[in-house]
Amino acid sequence: MIIITNDTPTATAFKAALATEASTLLVFQHANRLALPTIKAVEALPLALPSYAQVVLKHHAAVQASREFHPENTVITTPHSVIGDGGLTVMAGPDSIESPEHVATMGQEVKAVGATVLRGGSFKPRTSPYSFQGVGESGLIAHRQAADAAGLDMVTEVLDPRDVDVIDQYTDIFQIGTRNMQNFALLKAVGAKRKPVVLKRGMSATLDEFLQAAEYIAAGGNTDIILMERGIRSFDNKYTRNTLDVGAIAVLKQMTHYPVFLDASHAAGERALVTQLTLAGVAAGADGFMLEIHDNPDAALVDAQQAITPAQMGDIVSKARQIHTIVRGV
Amino acid sequence: MIIITNDTPTATAFKAALATEASTLLVFQHANRLALPTIKAVEALPLALPSYAQVVLKHHAAVQASREFHPENTVITTPHSVIGDGGLTVMAGPDSIESPEHVATMGQEVKAVGATVLRGGSFKPRTSPYSFQGVGESGLIAHRQAADAAGLDMVTEVLDPRDVDVIDQYTDIFQIGTRNMQNFALLKAVGAKRKPVVLKRGMSATLDEFLQAAEYIAAGGNTDIILMERGIRSFDNKYTRNTLDVGAIAVLKQMTHYPVFLDASHAAGERALVTQLTLAGVAAGADGFMLEIHDNPDAALVDAQQAITPAQMGDIVSKARQIHTIVRGV
Amino acid sequence: MIIITNDTPTATAFKAALATEASTLLVFQHANRLALPTIKAVEALPLALPSYAQVVLKHHAAVQASREFHPENTVITTPHSVIGDGGLTVMAGPDSIESPEHVATMGQEVKAVGATVLRGGSFKPRTSPYSFQGVGESGLIAHRQAADAAGLDMVTEVLDPRDVDVIDQYTDIFQIGTRNMQNFALLKAVGAKRKPVVLKRGMSATLDEFLQAAEYIAAGGNTDIILMERGIRSFDNKYTRNTLDVGAIAVLKQMTHYPVFLDASHAAGERALVTQLTLAGVAAGADGFMLEIHDNPDAALVDAQQAITPAQMGDIVSKARQIHTIVRGV
Amino acid sequence: MIIITNDTPTATAFKAALATEASTLLVFQHANRLALPTIKAVEALPLALPSYAQVVLKHHAAVQASREFHPENTVITTPHSVIGDGGLTVMAGPDSIESPEHVATMGQEVKAVGATVLRGGSFKPRTSPYSFQGVGESGLIAHRQAADAAGLDMVTEVLDPRDVDVIDQYTDIFQIGTRNMQNFALLKAVGAKRKPVVLKRGMSATLDEFLQAAEYIAAGGNTDIILMERGIRSFDNKYTRNTLDVGAIAVLKQMTHYPVFLDASHAAGERALVTQLTLAGVAAGADGFMLEIHDNPDAALVDAQQAITPAQMGDIVSKARQIHTIVRGV
Repeated sequence: MIIITNDTPTATAFKAALATEASTLLVFQHANRLALPTIKAVEALPLALPSYAQVVLKHHAAVQASREFHPENTVITTPHSVIGDGGLTVMAGPDSIESPEHVATMGQEVKAVGATVLRGGSFKPRTSPYSFQGVGESGLIAHRQAADAAGLDMVTEVLDPRDVDVIDQYTDIFQIGTRNMQNFALLKAVGAKRKPVVLKRGMSATLDEFLQAAEYIAAGGNTDIILMERGIRSFDNKYTRNTLDVGAIAVLKQMTHYPVFLDASHAAGERALVTQLTLAGVAAGADGFMLEIHDNPDAALVDAQQAITPAQMGDIVSKARQIHTIVRGV
Repeated sequence: MIIITNDTPTATAFKAALATEASTLLVFQHANRLALPTIKAVEALPLALPSYAQVVLKHHAAVQASREFHPENTVITTPHSVIGDGGLTVMAGPDSIESPEHVATMGQEVKAVGATVLRGGSFKPRTSPYSFQGVGESGLIAHRQAADAAGLDMVTEVLDPRDVDVIDQYTDIFQIGTRNMQNFALLKAVGAKRKPVVLKRGMSATLDEFLQAAEYIAAGGNTDIILMERGIRSFDNKYTRNTLDVGAIAVLKQMTHYPVFLDASHAAGERALVTQLTLAGVAAGADGFMLEIHDNPDAALVDAQQAITPAQMGDIVSKARQIHTIVRGV
Repeated sequence: MIIITNDTPTATAFKAALATEASTLLVFQHANRLALPTIKAVEALPLALPSYAQVVLKHHAAVQASREFHPENTVITTPHSVIGDGGLTVMAGPDSIESPEHVATMGQEVKAVGATVLRGGSFKPRTSPYSFQGVGESGLIAHRQAADAAGLDMVTEVLDPRDVDVIDQYTDIFQIGTRNMQNFALLKAVGAKRKPVVLKRGMSATLDEFLQAAEYIAAGGNTDIILMERGIRSFDNKYTRNTLDVGAIAVLKQMTHYPVFLDASHAAGERALVTQLTLAGVAAGADGFMLEIHDNPDAALVDAQQAITPAQMGDIVSKARQIHTIVRGV
Repeated sequence: MIIITNDTPTATAFKAALATEASTLLVFQHANRLALPTIKAVEALPLALPSYAQVVLKHHAAVQASREFHPENTVITTPHSVIGDGGLTVMAGPDSIESPEHVATMGQEVKAVGATVLRGGSFKPRTSPYSFQGVGESGLIAHRQAADAAGLDMVTEVLDPRDVDVIDQYTDIFQIGTRNMQNFALLKAVGAKRKPVVLKRGMSATLDEFLQAAEYIAAGGNTDIILMERGIRSFDNKYTRNTLDVGAIAVLKQMTHYPVFLDASHAAGERALVTQLTLAGVAAGADGFMLEIHDNPDAALVDAQQAITPAQMGDIVSKARQIHTIVRGV
């Protein structure tokens, strides 16, 4: 069977076909371009090819993510942000939602430096089952109120496909964490929504795997995807928690049309390094970045060591904007 | 608050405490041993310490997994297998359930070489959303019938916490794949069951992270856990898909009381290497191993390159048993 | 035996002591600071401690490299450059010396963009013995002439301790390549000279190992050392040859007083990425960088794929200087 | 220019050609096979091709190492050992030569378990310049005497091309350490000798790089090469110093005709793991292995933590021989 699909295919038909027939051939169309996985597909195609300006053959496995098929940048619009349009987007906030008062205060600080998205976790992925796991739905309520009060978008992490609906009631942007980059059930669940998704790169994910994870979201019809480099695992983790892969940022900007962000807080694992790593990522071409802040970093419930103060955030944002201007050369 | 917990604590009380009070101190008891995370816990403890023969202080974060707290080997009993008692357990079968006839035939082959567990995937974690995703519940039915017909246990992978109940109706052993090692929602879901779980090591998981992932299952009261080394990601993946970490097998046998298995098929990614890698893992001290077989490997729906024939399986099992005997020195 | 040593100890006495007595205790003095490896050393010390303003105990193994012992930046002065004084130093030139005319032309291009050091290899470390191994001493002569004609310093790689003397007759700066970072015989040989050394980080060297390699040079009395990050080996090398570790640049600036440079050409392995990676390294705090250029990149004898044109070099240098100014915040 | 070379070409002509003409085409002949790097070479060839039974085109870059060109196993004969003939060779001894008496005692222990090669370092590659660097030539003398007294071969590490001649006066087998795997000057120096060389794999060397390093030795005419896997660098080095790559052993046995050994002592970094890792390597197909022993391990001058006792060595050798027999299936 051959299925011609748009950027936003009917998910039901799409999945039904995949489930019932292993040999289904997916053919993607976007604008006036058609992507065919094999040369053989051309013959089988019940289409008038001349109506397409361009036919992309032998494309990247993550065809919807690839620039060869979709050359124009994807620009994502949320209530308070325009992402991927050549500007620099800043997402900041506490690692965890601690209390309504705290996240509200943090929201004001985030707004003050010109950031447009308030981050914060109510469901936390912790290495140990005995660590603080987040405050749950009460955190979502507080987070939403803080974002609204400050005039910011809200982004928060989802860990479980069963939580997607409840989080969807509050958030503007979903976040998928590094440990869940290949949690395909979760990717499909957010792919069925029509809200932007921040997808963090897995700790040891290749760029091909990263794009194919994004493709799981796109395959559900949701192509408002923000790719976030957050440091990879390497042999040397004594002085930095992970290795920020700025080359990945530069390569992804060439390979894909999705906006590419970085999270230097988790890569550094150390607040004294967050400034340098964030600026490095912006210099490498990132469209935006995420910061973990805390007004009293040493008292943060999670990741105290890497949280920065609002003052340090202000310095980073100011320098990052200048560097972004230089890099863009406009 | 202090909670004294057994190996099988009341999950409800356990989670309620964690959710409401971040400072909850968990104290584990096992046989006549008590594990206290800090020296301070001793003073706070409303217990008559002398009634315990041993108090374990400054234990590994995954305390229930650690030998310092639980020195005896965990022995897991299923309908057709006794796992971790010093014997060598073999799990084999096709990568994917393809048809009732095929899995039934494979079951007979598996039985013939003296293996006791029939593997096979009905829900497949695939890198690309456009790849075959498994046949779903119809596969579980066929798998169960094939296992019963041959007198074997059944093991199959679960990808989504929402699938745990349906899979539980059929399988004897759950399997959590490498991409889901830190899918905490899924770990908690199988931790709430009372069936053994094969937990595969994440592609770039440290041994500490591996044990802490197992601890998520144990924290739900399910301590019938089989740890499976399946190859880690390294800089060299031209000739092998992953790097089988035999050192991990040897170290885990010292650190934890859970049975330790290996899956050389995925580490090798190449059938000509499966024999050597499996024997190496057994020589390093593994309690069992898993093999992907196919009567016509090149026609396998998934991972054709690494599937071995029943004849090669027979040769491996025979040599592995001899090496296991030498290594045990009994 | 206890030996009190300056930054420039008498190499002969130093080595003689090490060779004859394994228990020799080295005690370093710098300015009015004294570094003692162990608390026990204090008692054994035949010194009036009050004459030192500061005693550094439990220092990094590479004590001469550490900021705890030597807080001030090391500033290196060559005929045409001042390195590590807060400015940004640019080293550029062809990968290999191809002909006197070619390196002379490249020297003029390098000079034109304001760089001060002309790089070029006459002895090449090639993975295969059948690859072009460099032109040898005739290249040194041509390289020297090109540098002098343009008013530039010369830097070139040394592969063999037996070549140190001949190269010393021509070059201003020695370079030790990534494959030789722990070639201790070679490190000792350049440590016995009194000329600056560019030491490239090994492909999988930890930062501790990197500083200890530098310590081999310093132990010979040569502390004019430039540390160069050039990309590390990771699991993903499909789109970049190595992973530029900008975190290492940021950390090294905190740990050591030596100038820290980067070589993005080898990290990228692809000329379309050299700009972004170089700017990222400068944003992370580098004191300088190295570039491989070629007027006809596709015809370069070695590493054609990563060589950039003089025009691209000019763009990089211009943007890098602007970013350097922002980062320094002066 | 085209050069036809044997396994033992005239080194002078070979190097002269390479030095003077970059476009020199090397054509290897072995037995009745001819290896041509490109199809174009066939036309240029001034040879009667029919006189060769087989022409190997598009061969591995390390052609002399490859089985496609040289299918038969290389068998190396030393005074006391036959290596690579299907048997299992054991090299053991102290990490460092400490005293004539000590190495003599160790030699007797090594002989007693049926090993045939006495290892020991007189020149030590140490991470820090302030660590014990070995006793030098006096160690070579003591080592030679101990080997002769026990009726064993001698193997010792060479660090510097300038030491090759003096070491050559004493040793039966040269050893190149992991940090020098791509020290091309050193590889060329031992390639000019006619004595076997143990070449350890670099800590992050791919198998292609490993074979090409061996090719540097072979290109000098010395093809008595023993490849030694000794553990690679990975992200997890808390419980093992390096990750023993048993897959590399299995793959190398397929790719090359040289004997493949393992050194589990350095991979483990911990004596409690040396047995399991050594047996794993033998099960994966190794032709031999190396062990670090010490009669009083905790007093060893270098690497005390990983040295095993003579008793543990005896247990390992006994089990390894049994496993080797099972694996060979004869």
